[in-house]
Amino acid sequence: MDLIDKLSSKTARIGILGLGYVGIPLALTAARAGLNVIGFDVIQSRVDQLNGGKSPIRHIADSDIAAMKDAGFDATTDFSRALDCDALIICVPTPLNEYREPDLSFVISTMDMIAPYLRKGQLLSLESTTWPGTTKEILLPYAEKAGLKVGQDFYLVYSPEREDPGNLNFETQTIPKVAGGHTPACLKAAEALYGIFIDNVVTVSSTEAAEMVKLLENIHRSINIGLANEMKIVADAMGLDIFEVIDAAKTKPFGFTAYYPGPGIGGHCIPIDPFYLTWKAREYGVHTRFIELAGEINASMPQYVVDKTVRALNEAGKSLKNAKILALGIAYKRDVDDMRESPSVFVMELLREWGAEVAYSDPNVPVFPEMREHKFDLSSVDLSPDVISSYDAVILLTDHTGFDYDMIHESSQLLVDTRGKFRGDISVIRA
Amino acid sequence: MDLIDKLSSKTARIGILGLGYVGIPLALTAARAGLNVIGFDVIQSRVDQLNGGKSPIRHIADSDIAAMKDAGFDATTDFSRALDCDALIICVPTPLNEYREPDLSFVISTMDMIAPYLRKGQLLSLESTTWPGTTKEILLPYAEKAGLKVGQDFYLVYSPEREDPGNLNFETQTIPKVAGGHTPACLKAAEALYGIFIDNVVTVSSTEAAEMVKLLENIHRSINIGLANEMKIVADAMGLDIFEVIDAAKTKPFGFTAYYPGPGIGGHCIPIDPFYLTWKAREYGVHTRFIELAGEINASMPQYVVDKTVRALNEAGKSLKNAKILALGIAYKRDVDDMRESPSVFVMELLREWGAEVAYSDPNVPVFPEMREHKFDLSSVDLSPDVISSYDAVILLTDHTGFDYDMIHESSQLLVDTRGKFRGDISVIRA
Repeated sequence: MDLIDKLSSKTARIGILGLGYVGIPLALTAARAGLNVIGFDVIQSRVDQLNGGKSPIRHIADSDIAAMKDAGFDATTDFSRALDCDALIICVPTPLNEYREPDLSFVISTMDMIAPYLRKGQLLSLESTTWPGTTKEILLPYAEKAGLKVGQDFYLVYSPEREDPGNLNFETQTIPKVAGGHTPACLKAAEALYGIFIDNVVTVSSTEAAEMVKLLENIHRSINIGLANEMKIVADAMGLDIFEVIDAAKTKPFGFTAYYPGPGIGGHCIPIDPFYLTWKAREYGVHTRFIELAGEINASMPQYVVDKTVRALNEAGKSLKNAKILALGIAYKRDVDDMRESPSVFVMELLREWGAEVAYSDPNVPVFPEMREHKFDLSSVDLSPDVISSYDAVILLTDHTGFDYDMIHESSQLLVDTRGKFRGDISVIRA
Repeated sequence: MDLIDKLSSKTARIGILGLGYVGIPLALTAARAGLNVIGFDVIQSRVDQLNGGKSPIRHIADSDIAAMKDAGFDATTDFSRALDCDALIICVPTPLNEYREPDLSFVISTMDMIAPYLRKGQLLSLESTTWPGTTKEILLPYAEKAGLKVGQDFYLVYSPEREDPGNLNFETQTIPKVAGGHTPACLKAAEALYGIFIDNVVTVSSTEAAEMVKLLENIHRSINIGLANEMKIVADAMGLDIFEVIDAAKTKPFGFTAYYPGPGIGGHCIPIDPFYLTWKAREYGVHTRFIELAGEINASMPQYVVDKTVRALNEAGKSLKNAKILALGIAYKRDVDDMRESPSVFVMELLREWGAEVAYSDPNVPVFPEMREHKFDLSSVDLSPDVISSYDAVILLTDHTGFDYDMIHESSQLLVDTRGKFRGDISVIRA
């Protein structure tokens, strides 16, 4: 029975490698469609948590994990079970190293672990964001070394994840899925697989094209946020509120899409993915100047926020040194608990460098987590009028819906707003 | 009877200064709403044309002009009639000079002409795109010099035009109109005026904010087109078709808006407006690096197209010198006849510089028009298989719907496509 038949009869077993923000929603969606799913991860505690019917992710309910478990899902750290899988889908992180170069170590270590278990009839799909050429240059050799004939008895695919945690309008099933195959037969297999649990599979002519699609999507965001940040600086110098300007511009019913500025950019995609293209482009002697510029401007925003705070404190006759500063919101965006690349942390570090006494409040992050490059021995401060007024300045960095903005506004000695939450209020410092 | 009363009873007379791509649709819309409109222009032939019931603009029908005329509209070169107007709306061009600095000469000459006729009870609105501060710094002094008290007996407004010639989904009445007043009373007057013939008036807190809104809209477009152009260069170096990549990326239902590359940017807005902000920003010691980068990349695209053509001819053992080259489409965008800042013209000039023998075909531009900075003594070539095949290369620059693309494809010796019209066809040179 070949792969296509197994897929159409839903007897195919799907292995999902990497059980995080991408892998778990994918597993849920595939299981919901009636497929038999095995989840692979190297972290034993995560595997145990899932097998215990618990969700490791804030926006996914335990009941969803439990239902998936009841339908036959199980998680494992035993990668030899890849042999039992008809389709293997890789959903591991692709970060940057400290020199802002692609770090494919998670992809490569995953491939090393499953390499002995690759066999005829399997489909292998990479979903991790990466530079154009990765599937061909990194994954293909594993299949060839295993003696498999890609396009004949093995199917190699790239299909980028498009997860948007917290988006209430779209979920994995309803977000169209781009896929490129190493050969036309590979692409056909990709359509057969993803077509079972994704409403709309969008095919492109190669794995490289599919890799480029994902990068373009996130480059687009990085550049537009960078532009919003630069326009904020220009507008502010002219005494204008960029949020008012953007709100009015977005009433144009064509040719304009609103992007808002902030204290920088965060998350595991937008600050990182664009540089995968920058790195690969060098090989071809071409440049990615928009990416570099956006990276530079976005990365400079935490310093801008601190500069505005210094200036406002100075007006009040205070130095930032020894000032008590409260950072409001440290997750990287509204209503999540995800701290990856959060610009709030960069702001907090700069404040500390300047000699400020820094505290934070975030309803979603009760204790400052362990991070590879940042360390704060802090817990979230509970907000009350007395607590707020005890700080020399309060800086709104992440505009969670849970904050009591009236109380914050009334009680702050000095309020710095990086999110346009207090639009038009001249008593608030725009930053 | 004060202005607001005159407006609400539709007895107010509206003067529209500058009868071009902006002024004429505005006059039509105001007249259609029952207002008495006088049109002012310095070009006698244009005034005569309108008074004769003829449209000077391709996408506006003679019958519309005639109907407006029947409803009481008349055009004039006599600016003393501004005295009879209760509202004066300036719709003149704001280009750049040869140093890429704002050229407000049309605004200033208009103000000089109407200055003697400014009087109590009038509203003066500027619609031309310009740098933040223009209304206050340039227009306000005229009112003050005339002894008028702005906000009390005279109303000063900035309300940017948002015309999009050729857009079939939106017209002047249905495009929301941003307005800022010099004082709250000025803004109220603006709402009273525009509210008569525009469905939705969007108010902002100052004329400067309204000026910035329009610039941001066009900066957004310039940067996104610039990014598309840079991504085209990168994708092409990697052997990828950027049009395929963008088509797939735009299936993402959030967080992405498709902008396509081309041979450069044209029209009277996108290549020009952003530099109004660049110029003004210098006064405040801040920079507009995205604008500069987009300007640079967009301006380099004609050379890119020529380079690709040179390389493709070289493959065929030919030089560009003495080659016969046919440019398809010379208007700045599809299905218009507008030649302003058209990148096709820059491509044609570069081809001529390289020693090519250049011809063009454009169904909307039968004869190469007189332009301030460009001169070609050419008429549009009629296309046939024999004609097309007589050229060493055919370059598609403007993808008018009127072209017979099958014939072009079949008959060209060498076909260079800057518009992605022949997506996926490897016999066509992508440029």
